[in-house]
Amino acid sequence: MGPFSFAASASVLPREVRAQLAQDVADWQGSGSSALELPFNDPAFGDIMAAAEYDLRVLLDLPSFYQVLFLQGGASAQFGLLPLNLVRRGEHCDYVDSGYWSRRAIEAASSNCSVEVIATGDGARLPPPSSWRRSSNAAYCHFTSNETAEGLQFHEFPELGGVPLVADMTADFLTRPLPVERFGLIYASAQKNLGAAGLTIVVLRRELLGRARPGIPAPFDYARQARALSKVNTPPTFAILVAARMLRWLRDNGGLAACMIRNKRKSERLYAAIDGSGFFYCPVALANRSSVNVCFRAPTEELEESFLKAAEAEGLLHLRGHPRIGGLRASLYNAMPEEGVDALTSFMVDFTSAYRRRRA
Amino acid sequence: MGPFSFAASASVLPREVRAQLAQDVADWQGSGSSALELPFNDPAFGDIMAAAEYDLRVLLDLPSFYQVLFLQGGASAQFGLLPLNLVRRGEHCDYVDSGYWSRRAIEAASSNCSVEVIATGDGARLPPPSSWRRSSNAAYCHFTSNETAEGLQFHEFPELGGVPLVADMTADFLTRPLPVERFGLIYASAQKNLGAAGLTIVVLRRELLGRARPGIPAPFDYARQARALSKVNTPPTFAILVAARMLRWLRDNGGLAACMIRNKRKSERLYAAIDGSGFFYCPVALANRSSVNVCFRAPTEELEESFLKAAEAEGLLHLRGHPRIGGLRASLYNAMPEEGVDALTSFMVDFTSAYRRRRA
Repeated sequence: MGPFSFAASASVLPREVRAQLAQDVADWQGSGSSALELPFNDPAFGDIMAAAEYDLRVLLDLPSFYQVLFLQGGASAQFGLLPLNLVRRGEHCDYVDSGYWSRRAIEAASSNCSVEVIATGDGARLPPPSSWRRSSNAAYCHFTSNETAEGLQFHEFPELGGVPLVADMTADFLTRPLPVERFGLIYASAQKNLGAAGLTIVVLRRELLGRARPGIPAPFDYARQARALSKVNTPPTFAILVAARMLRWLRDNGGLAACMIRNKRKSERLYAAIDGSGFFYCPVALANRSSVNVCFRAPTEELEESFLKAAEAEGLLHLRGHPRIGGLRASLYNAMPEEGVDALTSFMVDFTSAYRRRRA
Repeated sequence: MGPFSFAASASVLPREVRAQLAQDVADWQGSGSSALELPFNDPAFGDIMAAAEYDLRVLLDLPSFYQVLFLQGGASAQFGLLPLNLVRRGEHCDYVDSGYWSRRAIEAASSNCSVEVIATGDGARLPPPSSWRRSSNAAYCHFTSNETAEGLQFHEFPELGGVPLVADMTADFLTRPLPVERFGLIYASAQKNLGAAGLTIVVLRRELLGRARPGIPAPFDYARQARALSKVNTPPTFAILVAARMLRWLRDNGGLAACMIRNKRKSERLYAAIDGSGFFYCPVALANRSSVNVCFRAPTEELEESFLKAAEAEGLLHLRGHPRIGGLRASLYNAMPEEGVDALTSFMVDFTSAYRRRRA
């Protein structure tokens, strides 16, 4: 069983994947070498990358006119690199401001292009796609599919418009089926649903390649990376192996449809425990509650602190909310087992009962 | 014993470090969690990063006015990011053209600032620092301490001048003691002497911080990363753990002085085997031979191909030279054991004898 990490920044791994990876580090497929020692230009590593891309394509049912890139730098690097890759001088882009992370994306993009904010949320509610004032001449329209800090998630995707739709899906990439053809570009850091920090996956329509401004470092130029099969320079080989193992695990476990059912079941059980507790509460509007980052509060900050301390003693780790938002947060990425949610909800019941006994 | 990988792009790991890392992945210090699951904002990961920086500072005897950054993107990303971080508009920088990788650095920098080439090598010989036509008003002076493709290495470092000296030390960082105070900035990808791909270490004088141009993505802005202790966004946590383990290993094994002795002994034994073979030869000038990338040739390309094939069958892997240069190359980074060199030199003797018997 536990411990269970509910961290927002780095997900747990399925037990069997973790065991496989430990073996890969100790001895890669009986070769006598470690997977960490694999040269990126060796055919064995080429096979890992090809398998990762193939499994990703199958999971997303990705048409061939989409390019898959394995990059470094994290989603935050993409915040600044998107305009450098996609926006020609004089063009602007549309951004949806729905919370902490979309504002970080807006701030970074603003240094490199003119940004139009076309909709704004209020921290508890997302601006529905039907309300976005999308312009017809933007270079792209950007939104954040899941706001990790506030625990907000879009459950309906915008319709295809004339302008490429760009989504930061770091928190909920591959947690549910996706109408992928509505998107011009999707990007996600791997450390939540695909394992290890240090890898950023970018999926984009090939027609968007080749707009990069001069001076962008070659490893961050989408078109150059596309031509080089993500090997303009040494890719983060081990993080790619971790992602490959996770992608295979997702396929072996029923793909994205089954994944969504598991993620819904886990989060609904936790939201029910919160709503039914008469103690904890969730400030997020019902329609926008995230299935991957469940944000909730206890009646006072003192009680939140004692909850965090007691939870940690039970092996329920990293339940503190985002520092800018406060409160509590349980992140339930793809690999969080149902037992983790059971352990948490049981503990919440115990904690509430103990509190009531003390007050009685 | 083997196999032994002589790859230039990814080094072997010491056996004990590999075993430790496999254990870290399986169960991080008996916590029940994997090291891959550590959130970057958890104190446990903070301790890893602090230990890595401390060991690096001790190894280099690094004065406190130097900043250490743990970044993503590889040295190739730094090629373009250096001018964006260090060169104000209107300034130029000096570059030494000594081979394939310094030319890649020059090409990338040229898109973002005016570049003056102040010395040029001929592929077999390096331009000695005394011959560099260093200008007094450059933003910095850049050179590549080891040319991985050609097997060239500077064995004397330039004197401190009025202009900050910037060095790409990807191939030979921490392979020998360094007069670190002569340098304004040193950068190196980790996958050669510090373990895993996906981490780039930048060491720079604090006075060079704060010159970045607007629009540089925050994770690549040296000053922002310095303020955030390399945590502007999620750092490559596992690659940093690998580096931390390798830095500890270097300290436990006598530091850089002992490391240099081992590296010299390994490379001198191999060069002696080449020079004494009457069959293989090394095209590099004696004074500039690299202790980490030993480039050599056989009499014909056909013989090189049959050597590569036979070597691989003996578990002597990745001995092919850089594609642009051709020939053979044995990379002997910090963790290559002496047994690896012994196995290679013995095999070279056997291969030569077999060839002579066939000809006789």
